[in-house]
Amino acid sequence: MVDNKLKVGIIGGSGYTGVELCRLLSTHPDCELTVITSRQYEGKAVSAVFPSLKERVLLNFSQPDLDKISPLADLFFTAVPHKTAMAIVPFLLDKGKKVVDLSADFRIRKPEVYERWYQPHSCPQLLSEAAYGLPELYRDKIVQSSLVANPGCYPTSVILALAPLLSRKMVDVKTVIADSKSGTTGAGRGLNTGSLFCEVSDSFKAYKVGGKHRHIPEIEQELASLAQTEMTISFTPHLLPINRGILSTVYADLTLDITEKELWQIYRESYDNEYFVRVADLGIVPATNEVRGTNYCDIGIMKDERNGRVIVVSVIDNIGKGASGQAIQNMNIMTGFAENSGLQGVSFFP
Amino acid sequence: MVDNKLKVGIIGGSGYTGVELCRLLSTHPDCELTVITSRQYEGKAVSAVFPSLKERVLLNFSQPDLDKISPLADLFFTAVPHKTAMAIVPFLLDKGKKVVDLSADFRIRKPEVYERWYQPHSCPQLLSEAAYGLPELYRDKIVQSSLVANPGCYPTSVILALAPLLSRKMVDVKTVIADSKSGTTGAGRGLNTGSLFCEVSDSFKAYKVGGKHRHIPEIEQELASLAQTEMTISFTPHLLPINRGILSTVYADLTLDITEKELWQIYRESYDNEYFVRVADLGIVPATNEVRGTNYCDIGIMKDERNGRVIVVSVIDNIGKGASGQAIQNMNIMTGFAENSGLQGVSFFP
Amino acid sequence: MVDNKLKVGIIGGSGYTGVELCRLLSTHPDCELTVITSRQYEGKAVSAVFPSLKERVLLNFSQPDLDKISPLADLFFTAVPHKTAMAIVPFLLDKGKKVVDLSADFRIRKPEVYERWYQPHSCPQLLSEAAYGLPELYRDKIVQSSLVANPGCYPTSVILALAPLLSRKMVDVKTVIADSKSGTTGAGRGLNTGSLFCEVSDSFKAYKVGGKHRHIPEIEQELASLAQTEMTISFTPHLLPINRGILSTVYADLTLDITEKELWQIYRESYDNEYFVRVADLGIVPATNEVRGTNYCDIGIMKDERNGRVIVVSVIDNIGKGASGQAIQNMNIMTGFAENSGLQGVSFFP
Amino acid sequence: MVDNKLKVGIIGGSGYTGVELCRLLSTHPDCELTVITSRQYEGKAVSAVFPSLKERVLLNFSQPDLDKISPLADLFFTAVPHKTAMAIVPFLLDKGKKVVDLSADFRIRKPEVYERWYQPHSCPQLLSEAAYGLPELYRDKIVQSSLVANPGCYPTSVILALAPLLSRKMVDVKTVIADSKSGTTGAGRGLNTGSLFCEVSDSFKAYKVGGKHRHIPEIEQELASLAQTEMTISFTPHLLPINRGILSTVYADLTLDITEKELWQIYRESYDNEYFVRVADLGIVPATNEVRGTNYCDIGIMKDERNGRVIVVSVIDNIGKGASGQAIQNMNIMTGFAENSGLQGVSFFP
Repeated sequence: MVDNKLKVGIIGGSGYTGVELCRLLSTHPDCELTVITSRQYEGKAVSAVFPSLKERVLLNFSQPDLDKISPLADLFFTAVPHKTAMAIVPFLLDKGKKVVDLSADFRIRKPEVYERWYQPHSCPQLLSEAAYGLPELYRDKIVQSSLVANPGCYPTSVILALAPLLSRKMVDVKTVIADSKSGTTGAGRGLNTGSLFCEVSDSFKAYKVGGKHRHIPEIEQELASLAQTEMTISFTPHLLPINRGILSTVYADLTLDITEKELWQIYRESYDNEYFVRVADLGIVPATNEVRGTNYCDIGIMKDERNGRVIVVSVIDNIGKGASGQAIQNMNIMTGFAENSGLQGVSFFP
Repeated sequence: MVDNKLKVGIIGGSGYTGVELCRLLSTHPDCELTVITSRQYEGKAVSAVFPSLKERVLLNFSQPDLDKISPLADLFFTAVPHKTAMAIVPFLLDKGKKVVDLSADFRIRKPEVYERWYQPHSCPQLLSEAAYGLPELYRDKIVQSSLVANPGCYPTSVILALAPLLSRKMVDVKTVIADSKSGTTGAGRGLNTGSLFCEVSDSFKAYKVGGKHRHIPEIEQELASLAQTEMTISFTPHLLPINRGILSTVYADLTLDITEKELWQIYRESYDNEYFVRVADLGIVPATNEVRGTNYCDIGIMKDERNGRVIVVSVIDNIGKGASGQAIQNMNIMTGFAENSGLQGVSFFP
Repeated sequence: MVDNKLKVGIIGGSGYTGVELCRLLSTHPDCELTVITSRQYEGKAVSAVFPSLKERVLLNFSQPDLDKISPLADLFFTAVPHKTAMAIVPFLLDKGKKVVDLSADFRIRKPEVYERWYQPHSCPQLLSEAAYGLPELYRDKIVQSSLVANPGCYPTSVILALAPLLSRKMVDVKTVIADSKSGTTGAGRGLNTGSLFCEVSDSFKAYKVGGKHRHIPEIEQELASLAQTEMTISFTPHLLPINRGILSTVYADLTLDITEKELWQIYRESYDNEYFVRVADLGIVPATNEVRGTNYCDIGIMKDERNGRVIVVSVIDNIGKGASGQAIQNMNIMTGFAENSGLQGVSFFP
Repeated sequence: MVDNKLKVGIIGGSGYTGVELCRLLSTHPDCELTVITSRQYEGKAVSAVFPSLKERVLLNFSQPDLDKISPLADLFFTAVPHKTAMAIVPFLLDKGKKVVDLSADFRIRKPEVYERWYQPHSCPQLLSEAAYGLPELYRDKIVQSSLVANPGCYPTSVILALAPLLSRKMVDVKTVIADSKSGTTGAGRGLNTGSLFCEVSDSFKAYKVGGKHRHIPEIEQELASLAQTEMTISFTPHLLPINRGILSTVYADLTLDITEKELWQIYRESYDNEYFVRVADLGIVPATNEVRGTNYCDIGIMKDERNGRVIVVSVIDNIGKGASGQAIQNMNIMTGFAENSGLQGVSFFP
């Protein structure tokens, strides 16, 4: 019965994470989308803006008037820019709602770190309350939380690539380099020249090179927590002429003598019980199109025997496991649904 | 219980239609894939060839030994080249199996027409027995058939675009032109220079121009049946630098005085009960990315007031509604499942 | 000596046609770019905005102050939006400058037609003075003109495809349909959601279907002139997920009995002396990547024997022969340079 | 006069480097292509295989019969696979011809290194004779050589990125990591499933991860020579869904205290006299589309202040500076033409 379904809302539904949440919720067996907001498209049918949803999502976009919309759902996805999120989330929590926040506002546990990379924080007390929504690391905390900070796309790809090595103290933390490449949905749906088809197509570039990307403190926070020591990595993001997908090539010097096969077995064991992390067969490197449109993170592990370096390659869909898919996974955990409920589709190929 | 699920097999599973059938069956609630064949990959895990299916499809490819595999399933998809299909299908029917054939071998009702465009037919008596698997036109026949000839991708897009007009005798049949553009999956997974990334990417071309494509007799057969008169259309296929999608722009001279809105209402009514055909809002033209990965056919209807011509634009996923999706839809009808069972996903965007 | 070189200026140099003019002029042996304007980028180095020009174009963008810039060059390319062009061009002509205008403002000879499709015209008297800058048809007029209206991209592809047939009255003018597909540079460098990479990539759509595109009056003016009778065509533009290229598939009913080979010979003869029009070998259909980055128009001619229809496929680079390349060709003719000066590069492949 | 032009031949002209040589030679003012071979296309017009060259390259492909073709030219480009090259080159040298070899056969100076990564070498004595054709490092040797080993594409991008740092001993050679991404032309025109449009498009992957790519010994040979010490780098190639372009992101730990601006100045000075190496403005990172179709290498230099690591980003066109463009540059040097003769075109954008 529809009455038994969880009512969920999306605040900020006109971006690429919003439409992906709509898509995933449209076939989720346990919940029902009851409200979706957009200042820009208020009053318009969601399916008029996103024709892929025609006849399957019947809502219109509403104004983000919190008083009016908060009674309409029990759990909210906030898919708004950082800074906007911290203005909305406390209200929703006060009303007893559960919140999965897709912005950066609640990912950094130390206010001073957040403020160094972003701006002043208006509700720093919530930072320690929020669970970092990477279920493979924080499932126990997520299940008890009303507020889950959904991880960034790059951090998801890098942290899952390194967790088994760092938690076992197998690499020299000073040598960690993450060279990451993202599809263009990562730049969002906002208008800027650099996101035009003709500027991105048939090209490739790096950006924010040299320790400037705001995902760095988030990545380092989690890597340091795993390694139980402070870490300063090098992280270089690149822009791929594809819509979806992040591939991170992660390098680190091994601190012990271990074969490629032994490394691979450690990954297999580490992720054996994780539905959404698939470790590639020995010697196989994953590609982004095998996770496109899904909540999977596929990982390959290689050792460069010539210099004792480990190279881990991870792929995710930046809008899937890197954003909306993981948000649904977090919702499933917070509400007691099967963790993979509504997330069982595999990628189409090609 | 698994025991109650329909057992299905795929003969010829290493192409793009094969892997798409695997994908769709992996989440289909009513059936179970029990065997899949490939000469090329015999013995290999399906997921080793198609890593997107990792941990979700656990079968290995088998040799297409009909004696061995026919007992393993109740319904078979034959996703082999034409000519090969006609050698396999009679055996399966003899064993009491249901068959959805994705080749061209059983689509043409008149043997002499088939033989003019293809080659001699080894079992012409089956041609009249086979149902043409376009459910929107032949649902009643499909439900009673053991052999369904799954339509070609271009024909699906053109026939659905024209059916409401032709069945009402509203256009001059001599003026019908279908200018169709297909994604590169339509060329299959075989090796030829023209399918290489570098030859297709950043380019666009027409091919088999001037009445040479083998889908023409299939299109004309169905259009003539709708119009109740012989027809000779012009059909020009083009190759798009995208993986999936066909957009057909269809032109015809109207034989009566009618407004664009009235035309649109006729389409709305014609397809009102069809889950998989979505008529775009008045004035709106569909794009291929709104049906990518789905079984939908989206249609827009426009009139050129300056010369009394109607222009219909239809989009499908050539591997979805144009092949494997429609094959599942046919299976659902043949076996009494809900027609949209396993086919309810919407396209991800972008 | 540099002193002998023609001094040329570009007004409106920050769009895709502007940067292409810069590229072509950077290796043109007979002229020198002395000024380029852009309100948006005033004061910035051209090569800072377009790094491809680094170390080869050393100018900075200027404000489009006509008093200041008009003395700096002898010939100007006006690469501004329509309406802006008609405000600038008379001033330049008064100063004795030659002008190649890339906007639509001087392409339509009848003011009432221009005003029906665009807006009121502020200098209609110039319309008859301007030469329509399709050298293959109007070379004699261009050579004598101070103002050349550079043709639209779609019109160039359609007119060259049809000229040999229409001037020989070989087709029924009521049956002409041009189904055209353009790369995304055709949408310009302006910011709108529909031009974002993620909206265009991996998709395909039609737009302005049903006789709505503003290139229609321009196409019909020239086709009517060739056929010596009024014509109302159907023209459907589509958006390709490539940067550059237009392919037009043009259909018409033949009014005489003629073979495909005879048709092809007529095209060969018609364009025998044209450096920039290449007629494909008999039976061969051109692709957009064979003219990418060039000033060529490649044409293939086919006959559908089944219904007596001719199908002509033409390809150009919409920024090359469809805009900036043709503008240089016009400049060459207006100034007495070799017509192919600076335009002899062939497309790189792939 | 044509008679004064250098006569050049291409052995192995049916691949992507062959057609690019044809393109560049078609507008080269100082030489003339007199013969081009291909077993596969023998007797066919070059322009029938590559329509972009229509009416500009008038040769047919010949059989690679060395006795017949060697008299036809004074300089040969050998664009054949490694192993084939070493069977051809000695013959040509014996006949007094100059040779630019695009294979790997003469790049490695130590036979034992060549044999470890490739196969036995049939003319090891030529290894020390051949000049390594990176003009920015070996111009003086190239000018005196009859045999130039044209560098690999990845090595060109990595060596030019690191040369200023290594020759000044500014980095810890044990920490050098090159994460490189190449367009798909790098995989050649051969038929394999992994090069099909549908497998590459809308995806991204790494390959030969962990020290397995055959360009490694070539890179290390040159880096070691620059640093005057043995080096073992990590090199990871990736496959981009674009036709042309390599972007290498190179990491190394600095061994001295130096600012980003000082690093940048060193690069500016190092490459000040190099026409084909353009150092990006301070803080700017290059993109592959700014060198597409050209012989440029654009380089950006950044320092990660947080950990003292330098990050150099270089871009080339893998078919241009990474193969055929550089081959022409080498020919120009070997024959006394202006080094940039025939190579002055800038990239079209977009």
